[in-house]
Amino acid sequence: MSHLERIRRPADLRGLSIPELEVLTKEIRDFLVNAVSRTGGHMGPNLGVVELTVALHRVFDSPRDRIVFDTGHQAYVHKLLTGRQDFENLRRRGGLSGYPSRTESDHDVVENSHASTALSWADGIAKANQVRGFTGRSVVAVIGDGALTGGMAWEALNNIAEGQDRSVVIVVNDNGRSYAPTIGGLARHLDALRTAPHYEKVLDWGKRTLQRSGPPGRMAFDALHGMKKGLKDVIAPQGLFEGLGIKYVGPIDGHDIAELEVALRRAKAFGGPVIVHAITEKGRGYTPAETDVVDRFHAVGVIHPETGLPVAPSRFGWTSVFAEEIVEIGRRRSDVVALTAAMLAPVGLAPFAEEFPDRVFDVGIAEQHAVTSAAGMAFAGLHPVIALYATFLNRGYDQLLMDVALHRAGVTFVLDRSGLTGDDGASHNGMWDMALLRTVPGLRLAAPRDEATLRAELREAVAVEDAPTVVRYPKGALPEALPALGRHGSVDVLARHAGSPRVLVVGVGVMTHTAVEVATGLDAQGIGATVVDPRWVLPVSADLVDLAGQHDLVVTVEDGLVTAGVGSALRDALAAAGNDVPVRSHGIPARFLEHASRGELVEEFHLRGQDIARETAAAVAALPPSASRSDGAPAVGQHAVRPGPDAQPGR
Amino acid sequence: MSHLERIRRPADLRGLSIPELEVLTKEIRDFLVNAVSRTGGHMGPNLGVVELTVALHRVFDSPRDRIVFDTGHQAYVHKLLTGRQDFENLRRRGGLSGYPSRTESDHDVVENSHASTALSWADGIAKANQVRGFTGRSVVAVIGDGALTGGMAWEALNNIAEGQDRSVVIVVNDNGRSYAPTIGGLARHLDALRTAPHYEKVLDWGKRTLQRSGPPGRMAFDALHGMKKGLKDVIAPQGLFEGLGIKYVGPIDGHDIAELEVALRRAKAFGGPVIVHAITEKGRGYTPAETDVVDRFHAVGVIHPETGLPVAPSRFGWTSVFAEEIVEIGRRRSDVVALTAAMLAPVGLAPFAEEFPDRVFDVGIAEQHAVTSAAGMAFAGLHPVIALYATFLNRGYDQLLMDVALHRAGVTFVLDRSGLTGDDGASHNGMWDMALLRTVPGLRLAAPRDEATLRAELREAVAVEDAPTVVRYPKGALPEALPALGRHGSVDVLARHAGSPRVLVVGVGVMTHTAVEVATGLDAQGIGATVVDPRWVLPVSADLVDLAGQHDLVVTVEDGLVTAGVGSALRDALAAAGNDVPVRSHGIPARFLEHASRGELVEEFHLRGQDIARETAAAVAALPPSASRSDGAPAVGQHAVRPGPDAQPGR
Repeated sequence: MSHLERIRRPADLRGLSIPELEVLTKEIRDFLVNAVSRTGGHMGPNLGVVELTVALHRVFDSPRDRIVFDTGHQAYVHKLLTGRQDFENLRRRGGLSGYPSRTESDHDVVENSHASTALSWADGIAKANQVRGFTGRSVVAVIGDGALTGGMAWEALNNIAEGQDRSVVIVVNDNGRSYAPTIGGLARHLDALRTAPHYEKVLDWGKRTLQRSGPPGRMAFDALHGMKKGLKDVIAPQGLFEGLGIKYVGPIDGHDIAELEVALRRAKAFGGPVIVHAITEKGRGYTPAETDVVDRFHAVGVIHPETGLPVAPSRFGWTSVFAEEIVEIGRRRSDVVALTAAMLAPVGLAPFAEEFPDRVFDVGIAEQHAVTSAAGMAFAGLHPVIALYATFLNRGYDQLLMDVALHRAGVTFVLDRSGLTGDDGASHNGMWDMALLRTVPGLRLAAPRDEATLRAELREAVAVEDAPTVVRYPKGALPEALPALGRHGSVDVLARHAGSPRVLVVGVGVMTHTAVEVATGLDAQGIGATVVDPRWVLPVSADLVDLAGQHDLVVTVEDGLVTAGVGSALRDALAAAGNDVPVRSHGIPARFLEHASRGELVEEFHLRGQDIARETAAAVAALPPSASRSDGAPAVGQHAVRPGPDAQPGR
Repeated sequence: MSHLERIRRPADLRGLSIPELEVLTKEIRDFLVNAVSRTGGHMGPNLGVVELTVALHRVFDSPRDRIVFDTGHQAYVHKLLTGRQDFENLRRRGGLSGYPSRTESDHDVVENSHASTALSWADGIAKANQVRGFTGRSVVAVIGDGALTGGMAWEALNNIAEGQDRSVVIVVNDNGRSYAPTIGGLARHLDALRTAPHYEKVLDWGKRTLQRSGPPGRMAFDALHGMKKGLKDVIAPQGLFEGLGIKYVGPIDGHDIAELEVALRRAKAFGGPVIVHAITEKGRGYTPAETDVVDRFHAVGVIHPETGLPVAPSRFGWTSVFAEEIVEIGRRRSDVVALTAAMLAPVGLAPFAEEFPDRVFDVGIAEQHAVTSAAGMAFAGLHPVIALYATFLNRGYDQLLMDVALHRAGVTFVLDRSGLTGDDGASHNGMWDMALLRTVPGLRLAAPRDEATLRAELREAVAVEDAPTVVRYPKGALPEALPALGRHGSVDVLARHAGSPRVLVVGVGVMTHTAVEVATGLDAQGIGATVVDPRWVLPVSADLVDLAGQHDLVVTVEDGLVTAGVGSALRDALAAAGNDVPVRSHGIPARFLEHASRGELVEEFHLRGQDIARETAAAVAALPPSASRSDGAPAVGQHAVRPGPDAQPGR
């Protein structure tokens, strides 16, 4: 039985010697490389925190003390040390979550994956402990240097500093790169701390002290703890954090358990707010990761454990098309600039950055700043394009509303990973964007259905100079091309029944493909349908309202919140026009989703074409006779569908 | 003609001597006191920036250089110096906005009033200038010390520091209080800078230098500018900002124009990111404001200019009731704590803070941290109540969704100033809350209609421990009590027609009073109506859906976005239940509102009872005959309305 297998709970770590811990950390790395290679997941961040997590669980007494992981994808080691060693179905339905999960363990606190929140959680828990009179409990937040660039982290630091009598230990896991190299003044400050002569001195001091103390272990640390000299050097004034009133300990070698434990015990004993600055290497101990200069295996699909290469190269089709098209646009328009929030490569901006290095801005994990600084850029004559994962736009809602939209700024938002992302867990799903953006006056949102519409709608978006525009698309491979038969005004018509169709099926983005399947299913039951893609789905166009009014029933299919989304917006637009044609919406239910594959979720939510066709057929059968087309209104197939002036069927 | 009247544009300031400027600043103060006393508005912040604004417009060349005011209510002096001296109708329809406004002047940039955005705007403008090859242009951001506690400001500082070749001048207008005394580690840092011996030295140095230079003016400053000694002392390493890589100049006496100009010219000449730390007094030069220790006349209603007392004491009825009730709740439950984002007194938490000083947390202008730290508190056994102005919750949307709702945390949000706030301008209206909060799974929102329902619904909210709850109410005086006749399940029934009512009128919160007027108007036309208040308006209750299904037409009245709000949610809930009874929604249109009185806006949006009754009567007339009540379904007055077990009519 390996050391790792014998660890059932954190307390089991406490009796191990340093040599035993070294064996353990090697076992953990081997385990991670093998397990994550098979299932996919966040390898690099977890390889970087092996020693740190072991040290945390030796020094602190979880769950009495609380350990909060920022951006929970660095919690795999924590899982292994808290009784969860079955990684067989990691990130799959029924398996372990890729993040902490309270239903998995009492040792877990924060389940979401949005960055920069851990310090606020820690401040809240520490305040609650104080109000409830629980003394002697520490709260530890583990946060990356990248996440410190997020504004929430600053708000939290300012508040944590206020509580000099509350024990909050902030472990800065500094690998100089969260997703990519960390930028900005903070990064330079951390760099300065890291490379200061002081660093080497502390390292030497730590090692000498430990060597003198004999084999490290509980007693050695207790002995150290009582020492009068040396440690006061470790806690020394350091510009930024000390300026706020937070003690600074570091920098510490984040792969040296003994040194980590000295620092953490000192921080714990201090009893107030302390920053422990630990220097780690993302991907530590795994050769392919260490040599990958792009993102050190931040997140991997299924890979070969020895080469680190993808087993089946995944296709990020949507992202690649955006990457190409935005470069094309950049060549034609020198006023187009690009912004990213620490995700340059994942959102497809690397080629643009290569060709136009002076026209791309990585603002750090700082969506609020991305959005408002873009408003400033638009004011001063540029057209900014902000590329984000859809879920992270939520962070910039107020800025989009009050800085971009209120000022009628021509800023384009490109939302990747919209809709269901599946195995990344509840907080990565990009399912809120349309419901949210619907509330922003003047904003226009396009949901392309295939490569050609993505290119076209992106071009249309950057041509709008007096309002925010959004182009949103899902994660993964591109679907087949789905050319339009024609246009009804601004609406693409994709299929129409030869006779007098009773049903209008509205597809949103990639779900247009499902909408076509719905029509096929209805046709098999003798029910005629028109299938359309509104292209610009928000605000609802008059053309779509007009078309809807020519049918007895409208069905909408979207990969966003079924309540409050595009279907809801269409229903509202129809009501505002005094038209009460029934609308049946299909989409994602308004709840937080368990991690599962996209296919599993689509099935669970009855979003397959056959499901929707069946439900629609039942709804048609239940339509009151008064709503039949017997009033002689011409069917859409007979008059309304015409190729619009700018329709390009087959493109 | 006064000096002030001769200033038509910033250039007119440049020829004035220091004694003339002293006369001018006195004229400006007199003007502000008189004008703002008559119209209401933000007096204190503007009295504090008289000299600073004059100095800015002498040193920088607006609009070529850009001056961005954070939280634009400190821009009155700027308006006076840029050709806008008619304050007769300040904040009234047709008059000057209380904030910068691009339609008023080319010198204005940011029109909204949400704090902490100016640095991001400045960074964006500076980057755009660089991309477009406009050299030699400065961008100035004027930001209060309080606004620096907002996370956006940190994100921006981090990015501004990255651009060492871009001229961004950050003027920190430090009065130690934005709305109230600024809190946290940052405030302590600024305090330390302010009280350092260095401060006195700089003051002395500045005065000596200027005295030696003879009467200050253009030439004197140019001479100073060329001096080799002295100024390098002003730019000295200062922990926090220097740690980020931003030069620090200060502290400067913010009421000494000559000293301000020296610092600003130095900052401008530096060509990179610089902070100028100016110490000012909010309410400077106006005795009632200087002695008001609560908020130094942050914003005033119409007041008597000599005493500073309100001419007609305004009643903030809703806030006062909350203030009382939360204290009552606090007495019964030791786990209830309160949070505010720098608005302790305005949201009504002062009495709670007085009685339970250890159970109230002012987090600064930091809504994100307020929300997430509340999630941490709930996790650790408390029930936090976060009191905010409705418009500022937008800043914490992601945190509410991902930290509170996803973790099923029992956190109560109390949203004051929801709905139309009128003269505070576009970004103060609390009209987004319901549309936004509708997208949060599990969240429950109550909209009380009077004092009794506010008390009751607040108590119900804090009793919920597994989901976020929201209680929202408007600005201003309480309306008359509106007791229920009975309950239909969870829904209060306020009026019902004796016969067989065809119309269900749903009132949301204070608009329930309008709903009653609608029913009265319909009755006069022989149309029977039922009037209900759902109390908990989100999510839509099954009881409301049930009741709606018993009528031929549903009318909703809300003081939130008419698209995407409660009316829309009811329409969706009905559709999901397969019920296609038409719903006609009345509310605020989805656009940004010009400043005007609440009454003017209500009239403009056809939200008076008589307007809605007229439209509803027309809609009833247009109902198809098939939808008449001839199917024998019992009218609600005959069977459905029953006093619920917990209904307390007349309370």
